[in-house]
Amino acid sequence: MGIGLRLRGARALITGGMGFTGSNLAIGLVNAGSDVTIVDAMIPGYGGNLFNIAPIGSRVTVNFSDVRDVNVMNHLVRGQDFVFHLAGQVDHILSMSDPFPDIDINIKGTAVMMEALRRHNPSAKLIYTGTRGQYGAAVSLPVNEEAATNPKGIYEISNLTAEKIIQVYNDAHGIDAVLLRLTNIYGPRAQMRHPRYGVVNWFVRQAIDGATIKVFGDGKIRRDFLFIDDAVEAILMSAVSPAAVGEVLNVGIDKPTDFIELADTLIEVAGSGRWEFSPFTPERKAQEPGDFYSDISKIHRLAGWAPRTTLRDGLGKTVDFYRAHKAHYWDSDG
Amino acid sequence: MGIGLRLRGARALITGGMGFTGSNLAIGLVNAGSDVTIVDAMIPGYGGNLFNIAPIGSRVTVNFSDVRDVNVMNHLVRGQDFVFHLAGQVDHILSMSDPFPDIDINIKGTAVMMEALRRHNPSAKLIYTGTRGQYGAAVSLPVNEEAATNPKGIYEISNLTAEKIIQVYNDAHGIDAVLLRLTNIYGPRAQMRHPRYGVVNWFVRQAIDGATIKVFGDGKIRRDFLFIDDAVEAILMSAVSPAAVGEVLNVGIDKPTDFIELADTLIEVAGSGRWEFSPFTPERKAQEPGDFYSDISKIHRLAGWAPRTTLRDGLGKTVDFYRAHKAHYWDSDG
Repeated sequence: MGIGLRLRGARALITGGMGFTGSNLAIGLVNAGSDVTIVDAMIPGYGGNLFNIAPIGSRVTVNFSDVRDVNVMNHLVRGQDFVFHLAGQVDHILSMSDPFPDIDINIKGTAVMMEALRRHNPSAKLIYTGTRGQYGAAVSLPVNEEAATNPKGIYEISNLTAEKIIQVYNDAHGIDAVLLRLTNIYGPRAQMRHPRYGVVNWFVRQAIDGATIKVFGDGKIRRDFLFIDDAVEAILMSAVSPAAVGEVLNVGIDKPTDFIELADTLIEVAGSGRWEFSPFTPERKAQEPGDFYSDISKIHRLAGWAPRTTLRDGLGKTVDFYRAHKAHYWDSDG
Repeated sequence: MGIGLRLRGARALITGGMGFTGSNLAIGLVNAGSDVTIVDAMIPGYGGNLFNIAPIGSRVTVNFSDVRDVNVMNHLVRGQDFVFHLAGQVDHILSMSDPFPDIDINIKGTAVMMEALRRHNPSAKLIYTGTRGQYGAAVSLPVNEEAATNPKGIYEISNLTAEKIIQVYNDAHGIDAVLLRLTNIYGPRAQMRHPRYGVVNWFVRQAIDGATIKVFGDGKIRRDFLFIDDAVEAILMSAVSPAAVGEVLNVGIDKPTDFIELADTLIEVAGSGRWEFSPFTPERKAQEPGDFYSDISKIHRLAGWAPRTTLRDGLGKTVDFYRAHKAHYWDSDG
């Protein structure tokens, strides 16, 4: 049975559903015939953007609320078949100057959700989207799910903690859960007002604006940049895979790219912008985990997923989207 | 230079200082000539007990407050040479029915302390006492500090998270820290009113009361039970060791004991009590990590510490203490 059939008529709650990954996931689910409720707290500076769900408009239920709100979460989880738990503080830099939003939203908010499921809907399946930052620096490449987890920031720690909390609810309380660790995702519907949410999208904005992209260091650091449509497919395919329950799964792309190739390809695709080398600031250097790309054989084996979009195609779609809808994502003031 | 000389005149703050490990540590520090301030929130049911510090009475400063109190922690860290951060929710069973105290006290409280140090006393050294439960089940024995960390409960997750937060403050903000993972500790000054804080001390209470000790399963599960005086020495020696800064160190004992040997030795030493086999409850079985004992070669190499107390001697001292002071630790009502 294909994904579409398994999701048709399913009831799905998406926390952080107005954000980058959440809104793209909502669109994917609505198009697959699911009955989707979006939860978003619309915290200023985070990823929530009403324009993100323009394509599905009235075909989705929107509930503005915060994952830390116990009573609201207890109410909203009832009757859901799937809970896609994406809400969170996701800015590494912010987490290093103020650890409390990450602890409060990402850790405590996750516990609120798991308690809501335990008490009010233990048969729902929860899908969590963590980050490859949970690993810290790669000890060997590609990085598989058994690698040591030595996160370099509070944000990344908070994701690891949320994952481990969910794992305990899966193991001890019988709440089925799938634990994803997402690599660098890029594409339409991201937060584009500041550079702290994803380097590829920030490069795209600069290319569209005809600005000069800064490539740090020697530009040879390699990453696995994944297009959002592939990420959404990974989330949906692992959500419907019985073999993925209770498992930690990397979501990445097996073709790492260095920053020079990224900048060159982007500028060629966009037909605008330029790039130059820039030295690392000491703080950035200390936090820089170096080369990183994921071993994605486990999710392929358990859920049948593999990425399908080339960097060139993904960048092309991203540039086209923001060229068409730029006014909804940034303006001359920021 | 010996430990005593390095601690003489040092200013030390101990959070959770009225509890089991904290009060024994306070006694050790005062006897070494340190200027000690105890912080304790005296949360009912936790380990705080005024009688614990009877031996040092007026030679210690006591400040009743909660580690989550930002303003108080900001004030108290000033001028300290050492902060021994021991305060926390430590009941695994409670953490499985209510995850919020662990998140709030153990995780957020640790962030409050690290922010206090970063802003008001970045040259102090912080010593954190986590748990061997951070590892979860042992993959191979003995368990060294590189082993995978798959904790089986929210309490153990909260300790792992606190450790990782502190590690980030050590690495990124320059707050010197030592990260200990303590095995099962037993001895005087523990919480003895309920059985959820440490199996050896609970056995001791039953032996003293002439009750029947329940040995779960076949009694062959092995653990490394460490006497509190050895644990205090490990904490102090790692606190003054420059090589221990930024390191995770196991604190255990290289002689594992099974539960039958523990019960037999205890009953012989106490001259009272008896034991019988008891089947695991399903919940206990699911949470039981099996054989576990720590590789303690790293702390020996970096801080020169090794345990010195045999199980028989440690149990003897423990029985003697509680026989003499039983009224301060439990009564017929609990």
